[in-house]
Amino acid sequence: MKTIQSDNYPIFFENSIAELVNFIKNGNYSRFFILTDENTGAHCLPAIKAELGDDDNYDLIEIPAGEENKDIDYCIGIWRTLIDFAADRKSLVVNLGGGVISDMGGFAASTYKRGIDFVHVPTTLLSQVDASVGGKTGIDINSIKNIIGTFTQPKAVFINYNFLKTLPARQILSGTAEMLKHGLIVDAAYWERLKASDLSLPDEELIYWSVEIKNKVVVEDPTEKGIRKALNFGHTVGHAVETNSLINDSDPLTHGEAIAIGMICEAYLSYKKTGLKKEELDEIVAVIGGLYPKYPLATANFVTLCEIMLKDKKNQNGKINCTLLESIGKCTLDHICTDAELCESLAFYASL
Amino acid sequence: MKTIQSDNYPIFFENSIAELVNFIKNGNYSRFFILTDENTGAHCLPAIKAELGDDDNYDLIEIPAGEENKDIDYCIGIWRTLIDFAADRKSLVVNLGGGVISDMGGFAASTYKRGIDFVHVPTTLLSQVDASVGGKTGIDINSIKNIIGTFTQPKAVFINYNFLKTLPARQILSGTAEMLKHGLIVDAAYWERLKASDLSLPDEELIYWSVEIKNKVVVEDPTEKGIRKALNFGHTVGHAVETNSLINDSDPLTHGEAIAIGMICEAYLSYKKTGLKKEELDEIVAVIGGLYPKYPLATANFVTLCEIMLKDKKNQNGKINCTLLESIGKCTLDHICTDAELCESLAFYASL
Repeated sequence: MKTIQSDNYPIFFENSIAELVNFIKNGNYSRFFILTDENTGAHCLPAIKAELGDDDNYDLIEIPAGEENKDIDYCIGIWRTLIDFAADRKSLVVNLGGGVISDMGGFAASTYKRGIDFVHVPTTLLSQVDASVGGKTGIDINSIKNIIGTFTQPKAVFINYNFLKTLPARQILSGTAEMLKHGLIVDAAYWERLKASDLSLPDEELIYWSVEIKNKVVVEDPTEKGIRKALNFGHTVGHAVETNSLINDSDPLTHGEAIAIGMICEAYLSYKKTGLKKEELDEIVAVIGGLYPKYPLATANFVTLCEIMLKDKKNQNGKINCTLLESIGKCTLDHICTDAELCESLAFYASL
Repeated sequence: MKTIQSDNYPIFFENSIAELVNFIKNGNYSRFFILTDENTGAHCLPAIKAELGDDDNYDLIEIPAGEENKDIDYCIGIWRTLIDFAADRKSLVVNLGGGVISDMGGFAASTYKRGIDFVHVPTTLLSQVDASVGGKTGIDINSIKNIIGTFTQPKAVFINYNFLKTLPARQILSGTAEMLKHGLIVDAAYWERLKASDLSLPDEELIYWSVEIKNKVVVEDPTEKGIRKALNFGHTVGHAVETNSLINDSDPLTHGEAIAIGMICEAYLSYKKTGLKKEELDEIVAVIGGLYPKYPLATANFVTLCEIMLKDKKNQNGKINCTLLESIGKCTLDHICTDAELCESLAFYASL
């Protein structure tokens, strides 16, 4: 396993904590800040502290865990802390956590004094295979995911497999959904490999393969003018289901659980509109349905879900835009879907 | 007078309202938003409405006038309005106003859905010769000016001389300060020309000249790694005086009034540290002192002012960094000034 070179920054897989500490020591930073939540502060920070040794010229910024906290209020809290500690333009922010930490920490750093350096140390499977790579930063407003953000690349990403070993099974499966997506959109061989693997804790090579796929796509199209839209498969419906669940459910869906639903719905749309074979749809439903619990998608919510989809930033001119599949391993971009089609796909999921 | 070409965008001086309407009509935008304050809504919007005619597929977003409103709360209000009106990635924001409108509207647009297009229609002298050119966006937090922002270029700038004719004299003079700065830092001939002009309402050619100077500097160094720091002359002390006045004065200093004080203080530091001649210092004091009312800079505030300067984003490693002058028309970058030197310069101003 090697380092992957992304758009002007490296993604480390081996000895990544030592590489992080080297990066900090060689970076000539005036000081650095570690952004954590209570989980990563307890479970992941000690390994970094041990490697840092006496070199402790840093401050901790802690936010509460959970997507519902990826909002402007906590972002303002991060900005105020940077101000209070007199962070200058030669400061570094180390985002130690899952997607909430990397998205929000990246946004806060990319706008503080018009941009200071940041690196990601993703601690969940989801953030390792998805959020930490590609230079998207973001926060939610009115529970609309990542509606505010920037395209700004981190200076490096440090992926540590050991962090995954203490994660709950549900958190692992949240990341697996994005890995399945990577197979479905561009790599049938990877999909086959995933099908044959134990996905309760994907091994390091599967993670590396997934990062390689995502990285290849984002390097080709960093600001999502074209091929990067491939990564949106499952996300038009999935984001709406996730947003609705965040607002209404006492125990909301994880990102991956919502994307799993979105991928089934959008595979159904692919079967109806873009030539995905019936057997392939069945296979996708069987694999994804076998991994994730069935979610009770109430018919009474379909209109609300369509309204949420319309606010999605992927849309233009009031039309809802989907990435669909031609076959397993081959996606096709920019398919306008009507409310009726989207509702039918939701009903398909509900009927399973 | 011609169009100036900046970093991938044009700055129009002639027929600029007609050019704006052409730009909108030819831009293939799904819709557009005009950001105004109550002043520009009343005095400047009608000219645009008249030129638009029946082409009124836009929404107005109005914020209250004044630097104290360039804060995150109003920015969130802009974001929420864009969400409520379902603004998509092919939407355009037209910033019709002074620096508050262009800085905040630019920031809101550059981060909404990770960036939508925006243009500036600066309506004050200050924003015409300064804020609208150069791609800096920003908002204040804790009254610290532009502490949060991005480097994002507008798609075009439309400068309309007629908008200046209804401005109060104090607002005109706020812009004149930046024009004087342009002469002091790089162009002695321009300084001489300004000295010989009626600065109660500078003519169009002087404005054009000033924009040309600023544009040349920012195109060479868009993200302020080097020569762009020239534009900070007067702003290390000036920003601190302005921030302090915003917090404490019932009728706060305008930006230009604060920068006028800053230029006198930093001209004094230039005389002490970087070879500015005594006659040149006297000349600067006479010209600037002749234009702006004397501000009562209380000795008891000097420590506070130094503390504010330390939080300025121009600084690194806890040292206060100034752009100074070697002579009129020639600046010199990156001079560390101690608290004692800065206090002495404040005392110099107070003693005038």
